[in-house]
Amino acid sequence: MVDLISFARGAPSLDIIDVEGLRAAADAALSFDAAAALGYGTAVGFPPLRRLLAERHGVAENQVLVTNGSMQADAFLFDELTVPGEPVVVERPTYDRTLLGLRQRGADVRPVSLATDGIDTDELADLLAGGLRPTLAHIIPNFQNPAGYTLSLAKRRRLVELAAEYDFPIFEDDPYVRIRFAGETLPTMFELDAQSDAPGRVVYASSFSKTVAPGVRVGYLVGPADLIDRIRVRATNTYISPNMLAQAIVYRFCVDGGLDRSVETVNAALAERVGVLCESLAKHLPDARFTAPEGGYFMWVELPGSVDVAKLLPAAEERGVTFVKGTDFLLEGGSSSMRLAFSGVRVDEIDEGVSRLADAVQSL
Amino acid sequence: MVDLISFARGAPSLDIIDVEGLRAAADAALSFDAAAALGYGTAVGFPPLRRLLAERHGVAENQVLVTNGSMQADAFLFDELTVPGEPVVVERPTYDRTLLGLRQRGADVRPVSLATDGIDTDELADLLAGGLRPTLAHIIPNFQNPAGYTLSLAKRRRLVELAAEYDFPIFEDDPYVRIRFAGETLPTMFELDAQSDAPGRVVYASSFSKTVAPGVRVGYLVGPADLIDRIRVRATNTYISPNMLAQAIVYRFCVDGGLDRSVETVNAALAERVGVLCESLAKHLPDARFTAPEGGYFMWVELPGSVDVAKLLPAAEERGVTFVKGTDFLLEGGSSSMRLAFSGVRVDEIDEGVSRLADAVQSL
Repeated sequence: MVDLISFARGAPSLDIIDVEGLRAAADAALSFDAAAALGYGTAVGFPPLRRLLAERHGVAENQVLVTNGSMQADAFLFDELTVPGEPVVVERPTYDRTLLGLRQRGADVRPVSLATDGIDTDELADLLAGGLRPTLAHIIPNFQNPAGYTLSLAKRRRLVELAAEYDFPIFEDDPYVRIRFAGETLPTMFELDAQSDAPGRVVYASSFSKTVAPGVRVGYLVGPADLIDRIRVRATNTYISPNMLAQAIVYRFCVDGGLDRSVETVNAALAERVGVLCESLAKHLPDARFTAPEGGYFMWVELPGSVDVAKLLPAAEERGVTFVKGTDFLLEGGSSSMRLAFSGVRVDEIDEGVSRLADAVQSL
Repeated sequence: MVDLISFARGAPSLDIIDVEGLRAAADAALSFDAAAALGYGTAVGFPPLRRLLAERHGVAENQVLVTNGSMQADAFLFDELTVPGEPVVVERPTYDRTLLGLRQRGADVRPVSLATDGIDTDELADLLAGGLRPTLAHIIPNFQNPAGYTLSLAKRRRLVELAAEYDFPIFEDDPYVRIRFAGETLPTMFELDAQSDAPGRVVYASSFSKTVAPGVRVGYLVGPADLIDRIRVRATNTYISPNMLAQAIVYRFCVDGGLDRSVETVNAALAERVGVLCESLAKHLPDARFTAPEGGYFMWVELPGSVDVAKLLPAAEERGVTFVKGTDFLLEGGSSSMRLAFSGVRVDEIDEGVSRLADAVQSL
């Protein structure tokens, strides 16, 4: 039995997590912040971390809520904003858990095409002009999950304009923003909206899962104070407060420089991995189509239409490699597409993994 | 302005939290369990902690789910078991957040009288005989919040019989079980049910908030495997996984003996505090009626019917002392009752606090 090489898991390998830095941060948190780290706290999160995030995003503290991972933030936001039967705009494809969360709440999910420079804003504008009135639009602007594509500046501006014109909130879901290893960082829609004449239509979410470690489960929301306050009430009623100890550790890790060091380590490693992945695909699967991402964890790969990923996946797993089927990220279509994650594989595994994948394609 | 003495907060004072032990536990977790502590993990919780809890409760691992605090466990369980408009049995009085959680889900809340030896099982039996079919009965068996009363063994047995006879689940909400500083530990209803002919009607919840620290936000559920699995799916869809780092720290704290030491420290301190509180009440408020609890954080105090706690509370706060009004724990009544928490006050504050309270009563 060969060791499984996983292009499925959207998680960092342990070698790019700063375990020593986190140990020092835990020690510092329990030395300097013990009372706040170990007490109940409140649903807004660990106050110094909330303050730090408010400063970094240039907003008031009451516009920030720190949660148990950003998926918990998504859940609160969906509970607050979605209405059963009412439309929600998503990207096509989009994160499978987002689709699931919206469908479980009875939302009328409206996927809009995703291009390599982000959601098709013309298609969305046509839908809006035709009467679509979404309760929110969910957008993953940077290194999108599953596609790896990044929303262009022009499209960011256009989306903010459309949100203002048709009065709907944009949920800017941005966990990968700091995992950029090529190209220039773009302004967030939250920032563009804040500079507009009528701000308040963007809610921004991010996370420390990709920059510190997933197991710390620390994410956050930044948005209009009244919306954040309604979500604070939901959070209080759900769990009184999020994990104060983990947030205190993340706070110490940030202020002691661990976060910036960690981002550097992660980005260098992922740049190397994605480079090797692209080379290996060109070599072993020359018919595969993909766009090399400028950051993040994922790459969307389209195989020739004759390949059915539902059949490919078991053949691949028999050969010791796995991925996530494109169909998992779409309401329909995607049967010849895969999401390949390069966050959890070692460089020396990648070529072997792609070679196994090519072997599986051959076997069909 | 005098310093506020708080009999309101159901939280431990920092002096009875083993900060040094937790620092060592954090170091051990990040030395020996880094991969699992920092990775995503799954919704069942940190596997070694889950295994430890399964052993301690004498159940299979798939009967345990570790959550972000036990209130999050309550929320999942209420989402799973309550039905809008359908009855749920609670104790009268009961934890205010339980009442809120049930009412928000549209449950038809049916309070049943609480005596010093627990819920009135005859009253409940009459209601059941009269046709009441609850979707669940919520019971806090030990050192109940807010009353401080403990359910007798006879009543535990009777409740388990009634649950079997009328086929409803008991939610045994037991965060304070180890905070016993007098009397004998009683078997849980979960244990009594497991020994019965037709087990599977009790879901048990507890927490490390009272024995380790609230800020670690680690609680858990023990119950029938099929119910635990349904809740696992809800948890996955809400947050992927609970806080792995905090659970790894709690695990190390437990196996290194910190938990047992901490329980000893907490119980010794709380026994002393409740002793002083009872003496001070006898001295300054001789008309107050109460039953000294054998454990936990809280004591229910009934003042003469002429005292309205809605008026007493502001008068008390003016004098530098606070508590929670009895009315917060009831759908009706409780206007002359208070919940006094002795978990967060220092011994040297208690007599002064009660003296201020007596002064406030005098002022009405």
